[in-house]
Amino acid sequence: MKVVTFGELMMRLSPEGHRRIQQADRFEVHYGGAEANVAAFLAQMGVDAFFVTKVPANPVGDAVIWHLRKFGVKTDWVIKGKGRLGIYFLELGMSQRPSKVIYDRKGSAISLANLEDFPWEEILEEADHFHFSGITPALGGKLPEIVGEALKVAKAKNVRVSCDLNYRAKLWTPEEARKVMEPYMEYVDVLIANEEDMAKVLSIEIQGLDLKTGRLNRESYVKAVEELVNRHDFEVVGVTLRESYSANVNGWSAMLWEGGEVYFSKRYEVHIVDRVGAGDAFAGGLIYGLLAGKKPQEKLEFAVAASCMKHSIPGDFSILTNEEIEKLASGTTSGRVER
Amino acid sequence: MKVVTFGELMMRLSPEGHRRIQQADRFEVHYGGAEANVAAFLAQMGVDAFFVTKVPANPVGDAVIWHLRKFGVKTDWVIKGKGRLGIYFLELGMSQRPSKVIYDRKGSAISLANLEDFPWEEILEEADHFHFSGITPALGGKLPEIVGEALKVAKAKNVRVSCDLNYRAKLWTPEEARKVMEPYMEYVDVLIANEEDMAKVLSIEIQGLDLKTGRLNRESYVKAVEELVNRHDFEVVGVTLRESYSANVNGWSAMLWEGGEVYFSKRYEVHIVDRVGAGDAFAGGLIYGLLAGKKPQEKLEFAVAASCMKHSIPGDFSILTNEEIEKLASGTTSGRVER
Amino acid sequence: MKVVTFGELMMRLSPEGHRRIQQADRFEVHYGGAEANVAAFLAQMGVDAFFVTKVPANPVGDAVIWHLRKFGVKTDWVIKGKGRLGIYFLELGMSQRPSKVIYDRKGSAISLANLEDFPWEEILEEADHFHFSGITPALGGKLPEIVGEALKVAKAKNVRVSCDLNYRAKLWTPEEARKVMEPYMEYVDVLIANEEDMAKVLSIEIQGLDLKTGRLNRESYVKAVEELVNRHDFEVVGVTLRESYSANVNGWSAMLWEGGEVYFSKRYEVHIVDRVGAGDAFAGGLIYGLLAGKKPQEKLEFAVAASCMKHSIPGDFSILTNEEIEKLASGTTSGRVER
Amino acid sequence: MKVVTFGELMMRLSPEGHRRIQQADRFEVHYGGAEANVAAFLAQMGVDAFFVTKVPANPVGDAVIWHLRKFGVKTDWVIKGKGRLGIYFLELGMSQRPSKVIYDRKGSAISLANLEDFPWEEILEEADHFHFSGITPALGGKLPEIVGEALKVAKAKNVRVSCDLNYRAKLWTPEEARKVMEPYMEYVDVLIANEEDMAKVLSIEIQGLDLKTGRLNRESYVKAVEELVNRHDFEVVGVTLRESYSANVNGWSAMLWEGGEVYFSKRYEVHIVDRVGAGDAFAGGLIYGLLAGKKPQEKLEFAVAASCMKHSIPGDFSILTNEEIEKLASGTTSGRVER
Amino acid sequence: MKVVTFGELMMRLSPEGHRRIQQADRFEVHYGGAEANVAAFLAQMGVDAFFVTKVPANPVGDAVIWHLRKFGVKTDWVIKGKGRLGIYFLELGMSQRPSKVIYDRKGSAISLANLEDFPWEEILEEADHFHFSGITPALGGKLPEIVGEALKVAKAKNVRVSCDLNYRAKLWTPEEARKVMEPYMEYVDVLIANEEDMAKVLSIEIQGLDLKTGRLNRESYVKAVEELVNRHDFEVVGVTLRESYSANVNGWSAMLWEGGEVYFSKRYEVHIVDRVGAGDAFAGGLIYGLLAGKKPQEKLEFAVAASCMKHSIPGDFSILTNEEIEKLASGTTSGRVER
Amino acid sequence: MKVVTFGELMMRLSPEGHRRIQQADRFEVHYGGAEANVAAFLAQMGVDAFFVTKVPANPVGDAVIWHLRKFGVKTDWVIKGKGRLGIYFLELGMSQRPSKVIYDRKGSAISLANLEDFPWEEILEEADHFHFSGITPALGGKLPEIVGEALKVAKAKNVRVSCDLNYRAKLWTPEEARKVMEPYMEYVDVLIANEEDMAKVLSIEIQGLDLKTGRLNRESYVKAVEELVNRHDFEVVGVTLRESYSANVNGWSAMLWEGGEVYFSKRYEVHIVDRVGAGDAFAGGLIYGLLAGKKPQEKLEFAVAASCMKHSIPGDFSILTNEEIEKLASGTTSGRVER
Repeated sequence: MKVVTFGELMMRLSPEGHRRIQQADRFEVHYGGAEANVAAFLAQMGVDAFFVTKVPANPVGDAVIWHLRKFGVKTDWVIKGKGRLGIYFLELGMSQRPSKVIYDRKGSAISLANLEDFPWEEILEEADHFHFSGITPALGGKLPEIVGEALKVAKAKNVRVSCDLNYRAKLWTPEEARKVMEPYMEYVDVLIANEEDMAKVLSIEIQGLDLKTGRLNRESYVKAVEELVNRHDFEVVGVTLRESYSANVNGWSAMLWEGGEVYFSKRYEVHIVDRVGAGDAFAGGLIYGLLAGKKPQEKLEFAVAASCMKHSIPGDFSILTNEEIEKLASGTTSGRVER
Repeated sequence: MKVVTFGELMMRLSPEGHRRIQQADRFEVHYGGAEANVAAFLAQMGVDAFFVTKVPANPVGDAVIWHLRKFGVKTDWVIKGKGRLGIYFLELGMSQRPSKVIYDRKGSAISLANLEDFPWEEILEEADHFHFSGITPALGGKLPEIVGEALKVAKAKNVRVSCDLNYRAKLWTPEEARKVMEPYMEYVDVLIANEEDMAKVLSIEIQGLDLKTGRLNRESYVKAVEELVNRHDFEVVGVTLRESYSANVNGWSAMLWEGGEVYFSKRYEVHIVDRVGAGDAFAGGLIYGLLAGKKPQEKLEFAVAASCMKHSIPGDFSILTNEEIEKLASGTTSGRVER
Repeated sequence: MKVVTFGELMMRLSPEGHRRIQQADRFEVHYGGAEANVAAFLAQMGVDAFFVTKVPANPVGDAVIWHLRKFGVKTDWVIKGKGRLGIYFLELGMSQRPSKVIYDRKGSAISLANLEDFPWEEILEEADHFHFSGITPALGGKLPEIVGEALKVAKAKNVRVSCDLNYRAKLWTPEEARKVMEPYMEYVDVLIANEEDMAKVLSIEIQGLDLKTGRLNRESYVKAVEELVNRHDFEVVGVTLRESYSANVNGWSAMLWEGGEVYFSKRYEVHIVDRVGAGDAFAGGLIYGLLAGKKPQEKLEFAVAASCMKHSIPGDFSILTNEEIEKLASGTTSGRVER
Repeated sequence: MKVVTFGELMMRLSPEGHRRIQQADRFEVHYGGAEANVAAFLAQMGVDAFFVTKVPANPVGDAVIWHLRKFGVKTDWVIKGKGRLGIYFLELGMSQRPSKVIYDRKGSAISLANLEDFPWEEILEEADHFHFSGITPALGGKLPEIVGEALKVAKAKNVRVSCDLNYRAKLWTPEEARKVMEPYMEYVDVLIANEEDMAKVLSIEIQGLDLKTGRLNRESYVKAVEELVNRHDFEVVGVTLRESYSANVNGWSAMLWEGGEVYFSKRYEVHIVDRVGAGDAFAGGLIYGLLAGKKPQEKLEFAVAASCMKHSIPGDFSILTNEEIEKLASGTTSGRVER
Repeated sequence: MKVVTFGELMMRLSPEGHRRIQQADRFEVHYGGAEANVAAFLAQMGVDAFFVTKVPANPVGDAVIWHLRKFGVKTDWVIKGKGRLGIYFLELGMSQRPSKVIYDRKGSAISLANLEDFPWEEILEEADHFHFSGITPALGGKLPEIVGEALKVAKAKNVRVSCDLNYRAKLWTPEEARKVMEPYMEYVDVLIANEEDMAKVLSIEIQGLDLKTGRLNRESYVKAVEELVNRHDFEVVGVTLRESYSANVNGWSAMLWEGGEVYFSKRYEVHIVDRVGAGDAFAGGLIYGLLAGKKPQEKLEFAVAASCMKHSIPGDFSILTNEEIEKLASGTTSGRVER
Repeated sequence: MKVVTFGELMMRLSPEGHRRIQQADRFEVHYGGAEANVAAFLAQMGVDAFFVTKVPANPVGDAVIWHLRKFGVKTDWVIKGKGRLGIYFLELGMSQRPSKVIYDRKGSAISLANLEDFPWEEILEEADHFHFSGITPALGGKLPEIVGEALKVAKAKNVRVSCDLNYRAKLWTPEEARKVMEPYMEYVDVLIANEEDMAKVLSIEIQGLDLKTGRLNRESYVKAVEELVNRHDFEVVGVTLRESYSANVNGWSAMLWEGGEVYFSKRYEVHIVDRVGAGDAFAGGLIYGLLAGKKPQEKLEFAVAASCMKHSIPGDFSILTNEEIEKLASGTTSGRVER
């Protein structure tokens, strides 16, 4: 099976432990980005996962390729050229102090890319699935156009398409997001979103939410998703349900709409090591479930278990085997030492 | 606005992570002390914060000055001279194992200081506020006298004075503490204390406390504070209410007495990264609230939010912006990633 | 007082923090093994604790001896010879992701040992206590025989014998375990076990257990132990009761059977730094309680407090003083900073 | 004494030890830039050293200010605004493998600065000295103009001006450099350069150089400098003479032209810890020598000793006391432990 | 171009810096082995480099694959199965203290491999080159036979074969080595060796050597190689000439015999970061030179420059670009910072 | 064989790598002291080595004992009591920048010790050798008296006594040193010294020395030692000859006077990792040579080889085997990897 994902991969720099940036005389280095995270997840599931991007033609760009290869991601379509590698600084929060992301991604090679950099006919040849997130077009430049082109080629080639809305307020306004993203929806088969994404990108408000305290309300979510599938012709919709009690303890579950039915997953209380990339592990789990032909509830539990475990792994990429995920999905939540 | 704080700043050496001292082949190095912590907090709020102390005339003493400057603290009155820099070893506890402090502060330059080292008339020129804690006179030598002198000058210059009782059983007995501290009270406008301080230093017992299990009783606190303000002519009294469930999870809140009224703050459950200096962040928050002319409940919530967040920051000094504290004080407790 | 313990000591390699093995470009190095952990605990209690084993005759073997000596363990009977040092890789889990142990212990010097390597008459001279666990014979080779010999000599010399069943599914099957272990039982005075050990090694099933979720049922434990003491002539039986809620939060308590009575300890909720060796700290605490002539409930509380605190200490060996354990055992659970 | 320096300060990220970028899962973080390095040196000599720049209005920009303050540099004229902080990656070379710098400085706040950001009349008020290097105008944007403005104001205020040519091939071509830099020369009192700078920026070739092997020829240098002072009306010219034998062993000395005379310094063979900023320590030493009224040979030896010692200090900023430099300058080169 | 290399890859554990094993509470983790090092070198030169081996079917085996992939090595023929991963401990020496290797490689998966594990017909399909070293058969088991089989298939398929004698006294005696290795020689086109290899494996002594002090004598080397090519029908012979002055400073050069002529390379004095794998970088450079059709002297200089630079790179694998090697080979030895 | 050494053991804190103290946010922790270093050396040679000292009765004092035990030193006479543990800060120099020691040893437990703390009759029972250095009495308090007492008891018991003069200018003046040390000389059998010690403590100047550049003159040393043995009745005199070219490269050799003859050792050029404790390794090697009955030249070469290798080992204690030292002493200086 061949899956293609497209987007930006950034270098992530974080002070050690819970230090703040002014205290850092060392940064931990990770690499990640919404779509690369999905590719890395799928590569570990045994899928031929290609990540398509553009990086600078220098050792920093090489480091990206080395990192992707390590996880088994195919880098044939990692183009090298002008521009820099986007960076983000991450301060790890704790308790009442939120984790903090500072973007330094302007001028990245991918944001300077051109239509000709990516020959989609060739890239999507024989592909089973194409995945992107709302972050890619939000980077601007020619990217909205490039994504549009990829979608058309995917449609023409009968490649299933998934989109994680992934709204980022630091990249664009809801109006800008809507203008670009809504036209994409007709090409999208699998939609992945959370409450904020739906509200900001697709104007679907969920009632009774209290983001400040993190409490959720199931019925409102069902209503919102039903409105969504009325508007667009999705095959599957996955919605992650994060309950943010504090920076280090969250509730985590998800719902799935498929074939007219709504499914809710088990709910996990997670003690967090690193929550970046958890949503992408969910997306990866869902795509894998689709490729593997799992039933809706299984698919959902697999995706939620994968993303639940991602919270325990340092870095943007998950490091998980199929067996580990299945074991948790099937109910072994005790965390007993395996020896 | 100009604030002057006076006391000892120590080097703090802690084994990495949760290691014990015998396991350490590396120490993390921080610098801190009750009054320096307050100065560092205030400097970050934009106040002209002077820390007054004496350090050894060697690179270790220089390191102290470099550290203070980094946080924006004014070091004009950091005197250099004979003696060493006090050190404390800190083992970070977890769950049922308490954090452990081993003092190695005998012979410190500040404890050997003389009256002439500190020309208070000059130091307190144009100052708005003077802050000290009970630790300073507890170090002995001429310090009780030097503090007394500072208080007199402050009074004469109409500088508001705050005192954090900060009783330390390893430094002096309750009897010694009372003898020195009680006479200071007539100069003190703002008193900061916890239950142990009040009992040991001012002989005010709080009923119904169970320090072993960490449960608290609001009424007894109100009574105690009322007795306190009957005895001394304080403008403001702040009392921190720590509920110690374990070494890494505490309840945290505070009460404030001002203008005859008692106020209680929100209560936070904190997962602890580093609790040293949390009380000082409370003191700093309260002083800042006074300088900024905040209303009592606002002042209290600001001070409690500041000290709540300090628990998440490694080292003795807090690293916080006004905005971060206000955001928590105004109710955003979910710890969601900011991106 | 002289205690002799016998078994394998391994090098433990763990990625930093919560990293997985593929992410590690550094390993933290610890040394440990069930019986060595007990010896290290007892040495810190002031007992003359001898650990008997065989290590390779190279600097890696030397490192073992240096490590044992550091904790005060007597290494007179650490034999050097052919073979390697067993290694285990430990990934530290979190929340729903379990800690994972990968053994690399084949071909270890101890597993290649011969009967003549250990002159038990001499080794057990003047000993008060001999301790081993089920892991030692499970390593195969001549070890079942060597343990058998040690037990006979201990009996002949009137040395009290304790055995921690410590069943390890990666080392042998229940059938193999039973065949070797049951004949030992007539020499054992003090039996230490958990629910899995009793079921797998001594065929005593505990009803109503749900290992997946970690919930326990007191009555079933009592029944199981009563059956056990009917079959074998034990002086004392200690059973640890771990409730595994997640990889980082567990319930921890124990029961003791002695002189026909059953005792239950206080129950602790532990936030885990490193749970490896907690069971061994329990065994060490129980042995110390016997040597010190403590009463049953005291003995139990001491052993449970010791093992509770071990969860907070990195590495296989506990680092605890008698005073620290007694303080927790006597009810100080608040984890307040000691300063 | 007040000295003002103006330029860019970057974050420097280096893999640990001699690792290459692809191997780094941690970066050491330093901050530096040619002119900031000079300011940090001078602040440690007791000079009121102001560093003028523009940084992003986020915690990364704050970290710059904290870092400067730590060294005692005055940050009153560190402006905050749009843009990012320039970054450079540094791989530390060894033996035949050169150290490697990868610039990621496009879009930095300083390169986006405007004329109005820097009110030179106010900034240079009461200043004794103004220092800049060729890197600043090479960053483009309005910087050539801003530097020009600073020079005019300095002239008008009778502030002595020093310029380190600091040619960087990755920033501009020799033609571009000449076009901008030559007109500045009439404002410059103190010129600092090496052989490459003179050739590329001022078209003065030094004969008989073999940069590949690092051998130097004194006479050619004298000739070149004489040509230089014929063309421009400099008060002092300092030329650093680096002999690059390998990435970790260099010869280091300098020559000085002053008042028509040429002086050569002692020559040091340096084993290198970190050579970045050594040229800036030379500039700092020369400026300090001028401010302190040292004689030419003394001035030169002081500057060379300072820059020689900088090679032993990690990071871009030197950390040196006046006494340490004087001791080396006066001939104590044995490196005996001071105890 | 496709190159296949075959052998063992081990985990390498080294104490930090110059620590000895007893001091290590952390190990740096690298992976390497003579033939894998060659593959990693070639992959970076743009060759399709396959490394053939067997690793344990667990996360430690996965880590090997991840590591190889990172460098671009093809892992299609990394078989998983029973056995462990070989480990070696490396203490980094300095000055008069030699680096020290402690092998812990018994029972490795590769040493337990069977003939059927490696279908050479398939593996060597379309290959241009096959490389192995004397270490592989020295590991025993079926490996001498497996290597023999590979050689026969290579011959039949007209694949050029290179062999690095790589004698290891800890693995076999000279007699054992000769018995296995000499029969291979008829299949070998390219022989790589140093003085010890030639003496121990092929009984060719080099006169006038003083290994203790590290001085070499060119004529004796020429004689030895001439004897060698008289005996066996080699196309190319490469001999590395290491002059060991101390653990951290060596002379490094090589000679090449090709087409009846002898060539000597430039000689480098290297300050060593990590010399493990330098000989393998030489082998890789030579193979690449052959594949690229370089002339003899060019080939030799390329191989020597590559291996010279390897000494500066931590870990067993080199990290070098073609450009970097060519630059040094063409004479740029000054180590000037590239910026 | 039993050797007793007596003195102070300090905690040593050093910034990582070549960082200066102001840059340190981590210290490496070692423990050491002149006499403890000798004991640790001898314990590794298989001698029963007792280190006698006094440490604080807290976990920091425990850490000292743990550290000594690790190296096999007997700690029966490590007394616990009042006072602190002496600390010294060590900045590692490089090239022209000297390493720098900052003592923070005032108020140490050993400096507060009393005569009754050390029952020398018991301590020296059955001892073969007693060793101390001039540092011990230099610490003041009762130590000059305590050392005097130990010497008398040693004499009475026929225990051979060695003394390393070890003059420390930061502890006392030459006059003070002479007054205390000269009377000890009648008890001393083996004197160890360098040129500075002889001049400052015993008023024997060595002509033609240039400490600044590190050049030595053999004849002057011979003269000085002859004068020495004329004055005092020594059995053996060892003089270390350090040539300090720079902070990281030194010449190292020694001379020995025994039985009226003078011997010079081989000379090593050492590249330094950590030179602290090298002199103590020389003392240890000499004492071991005496105990083992080596001939004068052998004894000297052994002691010089041991101390030469100490320069390559991080920390104050050497970590060396007899075999390693003998191998170097017998002429293997090439530093070739042992594998």
